Amino acid sequence: MTGTGSSDRVPLADLVETLSPILERYGCSNAVARLLAENCAAAERDGAHSHGLFRMRGYVDTLRSPGWVDGRAVPSIEDAAPGFLRIDARNGFAVPALAAGRDLAIRKARENGVAAVAIRDSHHLGALSLDVEPFADAGLVALTFINSMRAVVPFGGHRAVFGTNPIAFATPRAGDAPLVFDMATSSMANGDVQLAAREGRALPADTGIDRAGRPTTDPKAVLDGGALVSFGGHKGAALSLMVEIFCAALVGGGFSGELDLSGHPGVATPRSGQTVLLIDPDAGRGRLPDFAGRVATLLSMVREAGQERLPGDRRLQARRVAERRGIPVSPEMRATLAELAAG
Amino acid sequence: MTGTGSSDRVPLADLVETLSPILERYGCSNAVARLLAENCAAAERDGAHSHGLFRMRGYVDTLRSPGWVDGRAVPSIEDAAPGFLRIDARNGFAVPALAAGRDLAIRKARENGVAAVAIRDSHHLGALSLDVEPFADAGLVALTFINSMRAVVPFGGHRAVFGTNPIAFATPRAGDAPLVFDMATSSMANGDVQLAAREGRALPADTGIDRAGRPTTDPKAVLDGGALVSFGGHKGAALSLMVEIFCAALVGGGFSGELDLSGHPGVATPRSGQTVLLIDPDAGRGRLPDFAGRVATLLSMVREAGQERLPGDRRLQARRVAERRGIPVSPEMRATLAELAAG
Repeated sequence: MTGTGSSDRVPLADLVETLSPILERYGCSNAVARLLAENCAAAERDGAHSHGLFRMRGYVDTLRSPGWVDGRAVPSIEDAAPGFLRIDARNGFAVPALAAGRDLAIRKARENGVAAVAIRDSHHLGALSLDVEPFADAGLVALTFINSMRAVVPFGGHRAVFGTNPIAFATPRAGDAPLVFDMATSSMANGDVQLAAREGRALPADTGIDRAGRPTTDPKAVLDGGALVSFGGHKGAALSLMVEIFCAALVGGGFSGELDLSGHPGVATPRSGQTVLLIDPDAGRGRLPDFAGRVATLLSMVREAGQERLPGDRRLQARRVAERRGIPVSPEMRATLAELAAG
Repeated sequence: MTGTGSSDRVPLADLVETLSPILERYGCSNAVARLLAENCAAAERDGAHSHGLFRMRGYVDTLRSPGWVDGRAVPSIEDAAPGFLRIDARNGFAVPALAAGRDLAIRKARENGVAAVAIRDSHHLGALSLDVEPFADAGLVALTFINSMRAVVPFGGHRAVFGTNPIAFATPRAGDAPLVFDMATSSMANGDVQLAAREGRALPADTGIDRAGRPTTDPKAVLDGGALVSFGGHKGAALSLMVEIFCAALVGGGFSGELDLSGHPGVATPRSGQTVLLIDPDAGRGRLPDFAGRVATLLSMVREAGQERLPGDRRLQARRVAERRGIPVSPEMRATLAELAAG
């Protein structure tokens, strides 16, 4: 990670070695720092910049905020039922909590045909696609939800209650990496609103409201006491609501609208929950082989009908280039990382 | 069900007694006829007219089409895994197939914390909300998907591949009937496009395309070789795709785009699949009681933030009026039912 002027291209493993000590410096245990660094570097490799290196400052600010996330938390795993795993992240990050339960969750899904993982008291700042992809690598279908900090109004409402509450889905497919998509159930991701504000761009219509509850296309008005709306009108709003139920009521945690951040200005993580549902396609299809082949057939039909780019295509393309040539890191980002490392 | 001029109000049980013999007359077994009649009458009671009495002609036309649905099919249930139930509807209706597996599915969810039901080779023409509500009545959270006949283009595409592929969700809540929502993942339900065509109304923007793949607001152009788009842009489109995977690849059935209806003009049912996911909130919350109370708390927050009508509110309101005063049946509908009964 040396050089000046243009972007260096850095192998994934080297980037992890750069990021992990930074996270450790600000209070993560070695094990947690490594998992978060791997997650962050993998998001950057996949071109998911909003969850990649861009987030390092958020991690640091959050770790520095007294009494917020515990970077040394050791998750506790409860084998709640034959198909159900409860994970208490103990106010730590969600990524290591899920990693701690992953193997048992896969085993439960294979033994029972289906399994659920409910994570509570966790902080999620990573790319949700990376949470589900390993399950699809193991041959399972995975669906996950997380709630977060209040940012989204209920349908027709005037005050934020929901988080951006993303959904991610992953499935094996023949002849390629798993098909994975993740999407905020909000009209836009928070990070993109911040970017628009910084660049002075107006938001599309139906993106957000101002602090008086009126529709606005001004990103600053959304950020300054306003809120986002859900994507897709009342249907998307119902999904935002559903995610709250899955990630707070179901796991025994707090709703996005209950989270009090007033004593923690600048923190970038919620203290929230996550639910993962896993399905073993072999249980569904019985003696019919080749679930992954059927998914590939569907995707061929979709392409033939004119959809040029499938969900995740761009991510896999970025990944392939990065695996061959390294992950691009700009001089500005190198400077930021150096500053955080010296911190 | 006598009287002329204005709508009669008919008790649910009486309406079932009217509908059931009609379905039997066109080839349903007594058991299947009764379940479909109950479903149809309950949808009408709930004000879900597009899945209520309006559908009776569709049922009859479909039952009359040689070689299409089997109204006498006896579903076969396979206990595929501790948490997984496979139901082969044997080319019968989905509603009796799910009813046949309901008790075992509930038991599996309670024993395992989570359960899945995969129904294949089934015909669905009912209100999806009624499929999930009984599970929430039993204290479970339920999420279901069905695929159907091709009607929806992939994102940016020009030819229909997906069905309207609805999603339904139900959860217990304290102090009220379960919270239930169902939504097509298409921009609009097919029935509403037909209604707009009949009434000469233009469709909203971003609803559909014509047979050349161009955006159109003309409902006739959508129906005449055109197609609907998914709701909510690329996010809704990803959900349409996910539903196909859950309801065809996962259950071992056909994709909406593979269904050949050319030999069966006028049939109103697809030959497709359904997946139901069930979660026991007691497994998720451990010793924390009152999941349903937490859902009610969330819904209070949502109302306080300005959402006046929650998903399902209108349906429950119609139900309460109908339970007190009977289900309104117009003279035209009485005539239609009399005609079908005389058939």
